Amino acid sequence: MEILLIIVAIAVVLAIAYAVFNFFSVKKMEEGTERMSEIAGAIRIGANAFIKYEFKLVAIIGAIIAVLLAAFISWQSACAFVIGAVMSASAGWVGMKIATYANVRVTNRARETKDLGKTLKVAFKGGSVMGLCVAGFALLGIIIVYLIFGLACGQIDDIAAGTVQKYWTNLDASFTMTLSGYALGCSVIALFNRVGGGIYTKAADMGADLVGKTEAHIPEDDPRNPATIADNVGDNVGDVAGLGSDLLESYVGAILSGVILACELFLHNAGFDEDFLTKLMLFPILLAGCGLLACLVGIGYVLVKPKLSSNVHMELNIATWISAGLSVVAGFLLSFFMFKGDSGFYDTVGWNAGNLSPWLASVFGIAAGIIIGLISEYYTSYDHKPTKRIAEASKEGAALNITQGLSNGMASCMLPVVVLAVAIFGSYMVGGMYGVACAAVGMLSFVAATVSVDTYGPISDNAGGIAEMSGLDEDVRGITDKLDSVGNTTAAIGKGFAIGSAALAALSLMTSYMYAFTGVGQEISLDIITPLTLCGALCGAALPFLFSGMLINAVAKAARKMVDEVRRQFKEIPGILEGEAKPDYKTCIQISTQGSIKEMRVPCILAICFTVVSGFVFGAQFVGGVLVGATISAIMLALFTGNAGGAWDNAKKYIESGGLKGLGKGSAAHDASVVGDTVGDPLKDTVGPSLDILIKIMSTLSLVLVVIFSEYNLFGLFM
Amino acid sequence: MEILLIIVAIAVVLAIAYAVFNFFSVKKMEEGTERMSEIAGAIRIGANAFIKYEFKLVAIIGAIIAVLLAAFISWQSACAFVIGAVMSASAGWVGMKIATYANVRVTNRARETKDLGKTLKVAFKGGSVMGLCVAGFALLGIIIVYLIFGLACGQIDDIAAGTVQKYWTNLDASFTMTLSGYALGCSVIALFNRVGGGIYTKAADMGADLVGKTEAHIPEDDPRNPATIADNVGDNVGDVAGLGSDLLESYVGAILSGVILACELFLHNAGFDEDFLTKLMLFPILLAGCGLLACLVGIGYVLVKPKLSSNVHMELNIATWISAGLSVVAGFLLSFFMFKGDSGFYDTVGWNAGNLSPWLASVFGIAAGIIIGLISEYYTSYDHKPTKRIAEASKEGAALNITQGLSNGMASCMLPVVVLAVAIFGSYMVGGMYGVACAAVGMLSFVAATVSVDTYGPISDNAGGIAEMSGLDEDVRGITDKLDSVGNTTAAIGKGFAIGSAALAALSLMTSYMYAFTGVGQEISLDIITPLTLCGALCGAALPFLFSGMLINAVAKAARKMVDEVRRQFKEIPGILEGEAKPDYKTCIQISTQGSIKEMRVPCILAICFTVVSGFVFGAQFVGGVLVGATISAIMLALFTGNAGGAWDNAKKYIESGGLKGLGKGSAAHDASVVGDTVGDPLKDTVGPSLDILIKIMSTLSLVLVVIFSEYNLFGLFM
Repeated sequence: MEILLIIVAIAVVLAIAYAVFNFFSVKKMEEGTERMSEIAGAIRIGANAFIKYEFKLVAIIGAIIAVLLAAFISWQSACAFVIGAVMSASAGWVGMKIATYANVRVTNRARETKDLGKTLKVAFKGGSVMGLCVAGFALLGIIIVYLIFGLACGQIDDIAAGTVQKYWTNLDASFTMTLSGYALGCSVIALFNRVGGGIYTKAADMGADLVGKTEAHIPEDDPRNPATIADNVGDNVGDVAGLGSDLLESYVGAILSGVILACELFLHNAGFDEDFLTKLMLFPILLAGCGLLACLVGIGYVLVKPKLSSNVHMELNIATWISAGLSVVAGFLLSFFMFKGDSGFYDTVGWNAGNLSPWLASVFGIAAGIIIGLISEYYTSYDHKPTKRIAEASKEGAALNITQGLSNGMASCMLPVVVLAVAIFGSYMVGGMYGVACAAVGMLSFVAATVSVDTYGPISDNAGGIAEMSGLDEDVRGITDKLDSVGNTTAAIGKGFAIGSAALAALSLMTSYMYAFTGVGQEISLDIITPLTLCGALCGAALPFLFSGMLINAVAKAARKMVDEVRRQFKEIPGILEGEAKPDYKTCIQISTQGSIKEMRVPCILAICFTVVSGFVFGAQFVGGVLVGATISAIMLALFTGNAGGAWDNAKKYIESGGLKGLGKGSAAHDASVVGDTVGDPLKDTVGPSLDILIKIMSTLSLVLVVIFSEYNLFGLFM
Repeated sequence: MEILLIIVAIAVVLAIAYAVFNFFSVKKMEEGTERMSEIAGAIRIGANAFIKYEFKLVAIIGAIIAVLLAAFISWQSACAFVIGAVMSASAGWVGMKIATYANVRVTNRARETKDLGKTLKVAFKGGSVMGLCVAGFALLGIIIVYLIFGLACGQIDDIAAGTVQKYWTNLDASFTMTLSGYALGCSVIALFNRVGGGIYTKAADMGADLVGKTEAHIPEDDPRNPATIADNVGDNVGDVAGLGSDLLESYVGAILSGVILACELFLHNAGFDEDFLTKLMLFPILLAGCGLLACLVGIGYVLVKPKLSSNVHMELNIATWISAGLSVVAGFLLSFFMFKGDSGFYDTVGWNAGNLSPWLASVFGIAAGIIIGLISEYYTSYDHKPTKRIAEASKEGAALNITQGLSNGMASCMLPVVVLAVAIFGSYMVGGMYGVACAAVGMLSFVAATVSVDTYGPISDNAGGIAEMSGLDEDVRGITDKLDSVGNTTAAIGKGFAIGSAALAALSLMTSYMYAFTGVGQEISLDIITPLTLCGALCGAALPFLFSGMLINAVAKAARKMVDEVRRQFKEIPGILEGEAKPDYKTCIQISTQGSIKEMRVPCILAICFTVVSGFVFGAQFVGGVLVGATISAIMLALFTGNAGGAWDNAKKYIESGGLKGLGKGSAAHDASVVGDTVGDPLKDTVGPSLDILIKIMSTLSLVLVVIFSEYNLFGLFM
């Protein structure tokens, strides 16, 4: 059965080859005028400098974790951790690299051709490198771990033979720990990339806006604004590198939560044979592999089609639909043929739809992802009532704009959660808890396509910035703006997938967690009414709030430094606002880099240490509560911040596009909407995505440590 | 043992008599100048009109609920519901009445004596009427229900005899349903009073501020502002009547959750005798009664002391400490003597500290309440860093003020939750789940004193408004401002008690809920990892967000109407801003009244119907999840909104008091801080307090209905 992994291997090779091809095909394009090259170069240098700085910090923390894993869990787990970290870091790094090459080439293509479709192709080619690398690297790492530790080191055989011990001294035999180690590696990098990049980009963005737009009344990306290069660097390190590591982590989390759960189900129920175990373990990986093949077709559609129409949104949708549709078909075939004839085991895993159970569950996931995305679009696009209402409220000033946005964001939590609940319940009904994991994998099976689409947005955004700064024609900027605005909508939908899959993956990891400290043959259960679990749930629910509060504070702190610097330059460098003197971009870049590196530490370390410490102090039941509370409250906060932020952003755009009769740019209503947009920035781009990672890193970490702290905790010693 | 209720009866009689005495002693004071009388009259008429309007709506909904209770639960439950509703409505109504008499008399006392202590006495005398009525009416109702239905109708005997049936057709025998009915009556009124009053007061306040302060740059309470009378009416209907019903509901909820839990423990464990059951049922009521007697002393201290010092905060603290201290002593004596010799039963109820268990648990509650209050003070008072940071951020404009406030509010959730968790765990350890209920009662045992303090705040606020509008000397306003500012601090602490006790009461109601559908002899448990419960928890957690979003939207909608009207008047009535023409106050009052009555309906009905509908569709396990999810997420949101709102308010005050060197009123930083204050207003005064009620009304309602929907639900029919 393992031979099927060849499909995944082929997918990985093709994806990475295609990514390499696209990378160089973008790189060899012309950069345009000298001024354009110069600006793009500055952005590239800034982005590289940040990543270097950041990776130094991450390397230290990663090394500490790896040593601890090797010492207390197993060397296999530590190795897998390092592999995961390398994969995640590489995906982010490659994505950022290509984005800093592609941006200026997009501008140049727009300048040369004035054609939307042709420009889209360059931007999307850049994005596709990232999309393909995310899925390719993630699966590459999984295959390596599976082949080396699972097969060659015999860890899967140990599980099949049931020789895995519950106690941590014998733990080096457990494959689940190795897989968790890999997931943890991806999570740690994702956390730092997302948080660091998020702080960087929003500090620069807010700093640039607060003084530039609000005080000096100069447009966005104006070269007179000293923070403008830093702002564009931010797009690359936050929205590209951060997003890449983030989605790689989600993807890995979803896949491995299924694989790990398969092991736990086998160990605890012993109601099925080794062959079925292998199938359960392979299915999520194979589904992802087939999804990646499907994405090659979908991405190829956009890149190969001779003439793209000017309806950008439709072209991208077609690419996504092709990828999603083929994934569904492939999933059906996989499920149908792999599990045919295993009917004796269906009851053990809770399958109520025969051999189609895992496929049906994955379809629940895909459907939920799409619906949650559409709901996000409803709440954030200015074609619909909620965002229009925020724009209307701006007439009454900034306070009502904010109030209306908060109201909108809070009210937007219910519908997506109901959809998520239906998906959980539905996938559980057809496929048991394993079905819930399959739903998560389903949601992300065509991640290569969605990341490509998500990445082309910030590339176009940057391209627009370069056009503005190089003083190119209005119509160049017009083309990049159109690309960017479609990117905003697709980003909102992408967020739906991110939070939905995070919730499902966290849930199935939590189930594995419960299994890990429950005796064989016993039912797992987490009684929330017992005081220890309940207290855990309360503290856990407060954690995402504390984490978010810290992140917002970090952004605000860094942004204020930026504001002071921009103000200083406006005051001290004469002629800067008249365009006669050149602002000092470098200092602003330094402020963003140092500020974000400094500010990211505490929230990231909190995220990692909270579960560890509470596990060793209060034990496994408490941490179970923590995970439930944190997951539930993080889902709400992620939806709230994402939708509120998106709606504020678009309410501003609605006013700019003339949605409020007679009130355009420069009106009081527009000023009010800029305040809302600025408030929303860190919420939607720093806090929301980081919360997705938070809940997964917490559940992965608990899963790794539970076998230790369920035996050794302070509370257990004294009570 | 029931003879001990005489203590409670004495406390009730004394409290109400003292309230009546204070009422008339305030009313017979002089009102001052004709202008003052006129303004106070307008406020009084406006407040009365709103309450009349509101009670009409509430009467209809109350009648519907009462009929449904009588038809499907029991006539006793319906009667108790009506009694509860009457008690809660009366407390709110009396409080509002006295507040609208006391406000002008406070102004006049300040005008005549220019003495802070003497003015405080009038304000506090007004507040004490409300404080005494809240506790007095609540206990009066409980005694009536206990004597008539519990003893005279023999419902307690039925429980003692174990003849209570689980099935709803025989339900008319259950005392727990009757008690729940009473609690539900209080909750429904509290919900409408809080939500309606909250929308009214904040719509008027925001409307007045947005145009008056921000656009026309006239001070607060300036008579030229057409919304100013409505704003002052709002203080009375929101901060007085709303607060009164709210705290009465918390008080009743805490007490009855203990009494109901006692019944459920008896029915399900059958490990103790009837005498011990009676004691368990009486203890929370007696503790509250003794607390009320203690408050009579504490309140008397302020009112009887010949010369109050000018350190207002200290004088009020002494009153509170006397009340709290005596309550603790009385609780000790009660616990020690009542439960002496019952050691055989301690294990059954999980008491680990012998006959002092319930007392120790109540002390946990009191300590937690105080600490949570102090934490709130830390996060909201401008003597401390968080609020100062918001003020500092205002220098960078409104966006960073808002961002910093959000960050502050989110980060402020963790510490109070940890304290709450410790209280839950501690009280559970010493007294089992009954201990948790005792902790809730402990927290609120001296509610008469805290409500008196809480109510004197808005009375002083109103007094200041009247001084401003009547054109009195600056120093009169100075005195009322000082009183008001102390009121703000005590209000923040009061909020800590409100949310803390709500959480504890909801928890113990939830435990009763679990018992109500669990078979005798079986352990109760709510496994959060099962999909139905988990989906319930997810949807439940989204509910407070939806509810809050709707409330904020309601305020914003009503406020925008007010803004339009004020702008219209400024434009259409010539000479209004020069003080030559009189604005049309009445229209503004009408807008607030109609707006709030209209906007309160949907969120209130949602709060009531959500649990009912989900119970009849998905059954008891789902609702169990809903209650857990909603409680957890409501606690976070209540802390977040309360602390963020309070901090924004005080950041503005900090700037006004010259905290930022060189930047006072009229500076850009001050303008930014006004935006924050306006955003925070509906969060802290409408959303936060309403969430406390939401979680209790949900658990009470579920408790009433669970015996029906655990048998009859759509999901059960089909699965």
